Amino acid sequence: MAVQTVDNTTNTPAGTSVNLGPAAALSCRECGEKSPLGPVFACASCFGPLEVAYDLPEGGPEELRRRIESGPNSIWRYAPLLPVPADVAGKPNLNPGFTELVKADNLARELGVTGGLYVKDDSGNPTHSFKDRVVAIAVEAARAFGFTTLSCSSTGNLAGAVGAAAARAGFRSCVFIPHDLEQGKVVMAAVYGGDLVGIEGTYDDVNRFCSELIGDPIGEGWGFVNVNLRPYYAEGSKTLAYEICEQLGWRLPDQIVIPIASGSQLTKIDKGLQELIKLGLVEDKPYKIFGAQAEGCSPVAAAFKAGHDVVRPQKPDTIAKSLAIGNPADGPYVLDIARRTGGAVEDVTDEQIVDAIKLLARTEGIFTETAGGTTLGVAKKLIEAGVIDPALTTVVVNTGDGLKTLDAVAPTTGPTATIRPSLDAFRAAGLAAD
Amino acid sequence: MAVQTVDNTTNTPAGTSVNLGPAAALSCRECGEKSPLGPVFACASCFGPLEVAYDLPEGGPEELRRRIESGPNSIWRYAPLLPVPADVAGKPNLNPGFTELVKADNLARELGVTGGLYVKDDSGNPTHSFKDRVVAIAVEAARAFGFTTLSCSSTGNLAGAVGAAAARAGFRSCVFIPHDLEQGKVVMAAVYGGDLVGIEGTYDDVNRFCSELIGDPIGEGWGFVNVNLRPYYAEGSKTLAYEICEQLGWRLPDQIVIPIASGSQLTKIDKGLQELIKLGLVEDKPYKIFGAQAEGCSPVAAAFKAGHDVVRPQKPDTIAKSLAIGNPADGPYVLDIARRTGGAVEDVTDEQIVDAIKLLARTEGIFTETAGGTTLGVAKKLIEAGVIDPALTTVVVNTGDGLKTLDAVAPTTGPTATIRPSLDAFRAAGLAAD
Repeated sequence: MAVQTVDNTTNTPAGTSVNLGPAAALSCRECGEKSPLGPVFACASCFGPLEVAYDLPEGGPEELRRRIESGPNSIWRYAPLLPVPADVAGKPNLNPGFTELVKADNLARELGVTGGLYVKDDSGNPTHSFKDRVVAIAVEAARAFGFTTLSCSSTGNLAGAVGAAAARAGFRSCVFIPHDLEQGKVVMAAVYGGDLVGIEGTYDDVNRFCSELIGDPIGEGWGFVNVNLRPYYAEGSKTLAYEICEQLGWRLPDQIVIPIASGSQLTKIDKGLQELIKLGLVEDKPYKIFGAQAEGCSPVAAAFKAGHDVVRPQKPDTIAKSLAIGNPADGPYVLDIARRTGGAVEDVTDEQIVDAIKLLARTEGIFTETAGGTTLGVAKKLIEAGVIDPALTTVVVNTGDGLKTLDAVAPTTGPTATIRPSLDAFRAAGLAAD
Repeated sequence: MAVQTVDNTTNTPAGTSVNLGPAAALSCRECGEKSPLGPVFACASCFGPLEVAYDLPEGGPEELRRRIESGPNSIWRYAPLLPVPADVAGKPNLNPGFTELVKADNLARELGVTGGLYVKDDSGNPTHSFKDRVVAIAVEAARAFGFTTLSCSSTGNLAGAVGAAAARAGFRSCVFIPHDLEQGKVVMAAVYGGDLVGIEGTYDDVNRFCSELIGDPIGEGWGFVNVNLRPYYAEGSKTLAYEICEQLGWRLPDQIVIPIASGSQLTKIDKGLQELIKLGLVEDKPYKIFGAQAEGCSPVAAAFKAGHDVVRPQKPDTIAKSLAIGNPADGPYVLDIARRTGGAVEDVTDEQIVDAIKLLARTEGIFTETAGGTTLGVAKKLIEAGVIDPALTTVVVNTGDGLKTLDAVAPTTGPTATIRPSLDAFRAAGLAAD
């Protein structure tokens, strides 16, 4: 366990001191025990997951709000609330975030929402998914700990995000994928010029191999963004909460619908909202958080509906591959948050996912991937069921881009007509009427 | 010629008055004759191309700069300089622009550029190409003229941009493409739910059919963004010039490299730079404009090198399909600008295009399409030839996203290795060394 035995209170593998801004320590989510900042992800006492604890800025909300609003148009405007050094915006990185919060009036009309419906459109990030947010934070942790290689296990989106971020930031990258991925995803992961290794086996085999690598001397100097850098990486999702509230004019939404893969994003959005309340940047008022899964991989929704605290693993079978985690690490925390806030966790079929992708494209001109289709599909289902209140402000999080999951809609999306180039043929096709 | 005979001085097909902000008239680029704002693209006297003439804002550069800087993070911050109403940002549209100007230090090192090298990265637009800029302006013209259907002929990128913009803005769309496009492009064009018509013929056949349609009563109420709305549409490219200068701290770059398809974008970037000088927003100093073509479609480069004023049409044969216009309408204007500013027009082979795509991905984590590969390839060639001065500030314009032209790099982009999930196999693959 080479990289994990380093004493991180004084130095790192490369001997530099750790400056991660307001990040003060790692804290166990289970037993609360504190440990120094370092490339570790599990509590030494109870093996619970570690998260970043902060010394949050003092000086009052007005000063902090001014500081944020005068910052760059990226997640770095929130540097005072993230585990990154204060001068992060000047370092080479992809500057993700501050994506558009689209006021989706056409969609609202179609769904009967009167209280304001918004889509947080993270397809606008550099590699077109929210992964750029989390990877950007992991990169700063990797810099602070003196790592020289960035790595991850991935089924696609994350591989591209790590490859691109490593190229910009000047790291070597070495990314592991199952050997039988679709060619498009392989190209996206390989084009940034880092090492891309196909593993003969399933995604689970890839993960197991990565854990072995971290424990071996070969892995010394390697930062696996979603393993030994996970506590930092995961914090990147807080920026979705910050941006949504700032873009609403420093207001909390009433209801927010978020996809669930590992569940990390949902828990971190809740953490971000709580921080804004604590800092006085938004008014303290109730909000409800809703989680979205595909029926073909719905372990958290199943537990929520059954009233269980424990999430029973499932074998995924859905077109929403970026959400297909059958044993989501943060499932129990998601259940806590949905119940505490008065929200819910729901699932939709693959057919409903495709319908929702088309609905969003048709009404708002946003082409989302299957994860976004899942989230909007669940929002629609919960509005129709009266669980989401149409008279309240609602935000739906779109985490990625339809260009990456073309196969989901291709079989049912094509030309209205194919004709000879003549006005008669056009009239005959019945398209002339306005 | 139904839509073109309307008297646009007083009203439009729908009877609303024309409010396009500072746009005062249309002006012929050949004979200079003025005509009223309307959905026309050719001069009634000499058939020359029309462009928008403005009453540019008064009040001095400081006031204008403040107004722009306090505007939205989209092209609408430049509304005082565009043919759009002052309240454009409040209307439903895709809000493109204000994409990142990336300081490309890794790329600069590799190319030996010491004076500052920047990539204007328009893959960050809503449908991931610069087309969102021009379509957004066309949409406002279509609104002003009372059109209800948005249309275009396209080989891909533009179809998606029009479909998405129409969905958001509440127009019907009807887009025409050659029937044998790749499935990926068809899906991207169709997913927004407008009518998509495959034409049995070449792109030229599609264009001819669209011209017929505009002249027929069927086409009444139709705005073809790149035909009868072209004078407005083309102005969208000026925003690239505005953004580059603002993002450089209200400074002109010394050298700028721009791809050439019809040549419109290059001429409008020059127009935008000239406006900024005239308004006192930037210092008046020399700049050089360089045009980039693919060797397989290089009519403007050939004319430039031969010292001709006339561009001889070519039959395109290149992987840079979005630049494959064999008879570029603005070719002669491009030659004028390259010669006037002391720039050049150059071309690169398909192999050099692919190499440049990979170079940009590897050094900066930006995955560009073939048009961007062409532009960077030409920049590299001109730096190596000593035509572009490495000691001066240089901007390379990236107009689109590599996800749309995966086929260009797929044959030569794949895993470094494919191995069994074991440390021994990893060592044997020679990837363990850092």
